[in-house]
Amino acid sequence: MTADLVLVPELLAPGDLANSATYAPGVFPDEGIRERVGFFVPDYIDNPNPEWMTRFPHLQAVQLPTVGFDAALAHLPTGVTLCNAAGVHEQSTAELTVGLIIAKWRGLDRAARDMAEGTWDHRRGRSLQEAKVLIIGAGGVGSRIENALAPLGARTQLVGRARRERVAGVDELPELMGDADVVVLAVPLTPETEGMVDDSFLSRMQDGALLVNVARGSVVVMEDLLAHLPRIEAALDVVDPEPLPIDHPLWRAPGVLISPHIGGDTDAFPRLARQLIAAQVERWRTGEPLANVVIRGDLSP
Amino acid sequence: MTADLVLVPELLAPGDLANSATYAPGVFPDEGIRERVGFFVPDYIDNPNPEWMTRFPHLQAVQLPTVGFDAALAHLPTGVTLCNAAGVHEQSTAELTVGLIIAKWRGLDRAARDMAEGTWDHRRGRSLQEAKVLIIGAGGVGSRIENALAPLGARTQLVGRARRERVAGVDELPELMGDADVVVLAVPLTPETEGMVDDSFLSRMQDGALLVNVARGSVVVMEDLLAHLPRIEAALDVVDPEPLPIDHPLWRAPGVLISPHIGGDTDAFPRLARQLIAAQVERWRTGEPLANVVIRGDLSP
Repeated sequence: MTADLVLVPELLAPGDLANSATYAPGVFPDEGIRERVGFFVPDYIDNPNPEWMTRFPHLQAVQLPTVGFDAALAHLPTGVTLCNAAGVHEQSTAELTVGLIIAKWRGLDRAARDMAEGTWDHRRGRSLQEAKVLIIGAGGVGSRIENALAPLGARTQLVGRARRERVAGVDELPELMGDADVVVLAVPLTPETEGMVDDSFLSRMQDGALLVNVARGSVVVMEDLLAHLPRIEAALDVVDPEPLPIDHPLWRAPGVLISPHIGGDTDAFPRLARQLIAAQVERWRTGEPLANVVIRGDLSP
Repeated sequence: MTADLVLVPELLAPGDLANSATYAPGVFPDEGIRERVGFFVPDYIDNPNPEWMTRFPHLQAVQLPTVGFDAALAHLPTGVTLCNAAGVHEQSTAELTVGLIIAKWRGLDRAARDMAEGTWDHRRGRSLQEAKVLIIGAGGVGSRIENALAPLGARTQLVGRARRERVAGVDELPELMGDADVVVLAVPLTPETEGMVDDSFLSRMQDGALLVNVARGSVVVMEDLLAHLPRIEAALDVVDPEPLPIDHPLWRAPGVLISPHIGGDTDAFPRLARQLIAAQVERWRTGEPLANVVIRGDLSP
């Protein structure tokens, strides 16, 4: 038999996708469907179902709706091609990064709180003009952050694993960090980056500098960060653990702004995800190489 | 006698300005100084002193630290040249505009308030990608807002008094407003713009659209805006009156974010103001034409 069915979460289904089936969050399809699934799109963060891939006997390709693929790897059957959603979330995350810096430096968080008491508290803010911004992570998110900061007059420096043109290497971090006004974390979570931002890292940040984390919470050692606040400030879209427990001291630490891991999650996500899914299914059907391949299997082009 | 002395607020004095005197906020200089002042820099918003210009008998030129010059006009002696601070505040205001849009659309105001209770409330936000942003006011602030929004993927349209290349005319507003996701007010306060944003204007904004005011509070008719919230949302750096009284209903209106008129006031301001003052004094001393002239007198080059 030909397993030519595409199985997609109903919220991400492109409008006119031939020979496809959709599923509601958590509703596992019946055997008639499972037998025919050749291309599978797992659900988004709130309803993880990577284990479903093991239960489609004729599966050829999986298109994740996320950039991260660690959770999927453990369930990927041999021979199946795994693609991530590079390009779908990065711009939203870069946009949030810019918003977090400006909100923190112009006191929009304080202004929002002051509204409840009707308090008009004018204070001079900090501007990104001529500010030195170090962006650690030179991938899709980091480079989009750099692009977004350019017309604001910031002096940016990307930092990647290895030195290359316009990108400094992590080995240069100690000398680069001393005069950075903002340090943005936009790295993937790997054994090298987990816990990278510890007391020794934070000690290199100058007084009043801003740490922005849009990567993963565990890149930062939370207790070490707490010890450096408010000597430095922080704007964190990701923390460890998530959700942050109601009684965690970080909630009320001085100089910190926390957003609830909203980096990639905007109305642009379903639109861009549908476009990606439609394009990938088209490639799969016509035998063209898939884009965004993170594991190349042998059951699909 | 030659009135070749430059009188500058101490906080804005360039470091190495020859033949100059500084003054502390509100401290009027004695006669020995007043007689010699040829070039005067009034103080910033918090300590207005435009009336001083009438008391320097040999005054030739005034360099304001602000872009607006309405308050100064009433006190300008005949023949004295008046210059504004175009270029000093615009980028900070454009930066804040971007921050206000992102803060509102990603719920950073709600996140800041949620921190007090330790509430982790993940919600999908709106992205500037493909968002239609109408920028009313095609001057220094408006064009910088357009530049800042470009790498974020927004579709921007500048609107000016008259149609010209890449700028729509105000007469086109009715047709342009219907599908705008964001309407930014970046106009000067003039008889035409005062009260421009009234019930009829607001009625043209689509449900869920965001009004951003970084111009002047009285461009918007506050009672009319209150009637349209939260059908539309608003992010306001300027309101009418300022400071907003503690019991004003706008503080607690749904869908609104208020910042306390911080648009142009960042750490970049004194730096850029000092650069401008130094450059203008150099021109004045060497007989070159001054920049940023808003009223050309006959007592200076």
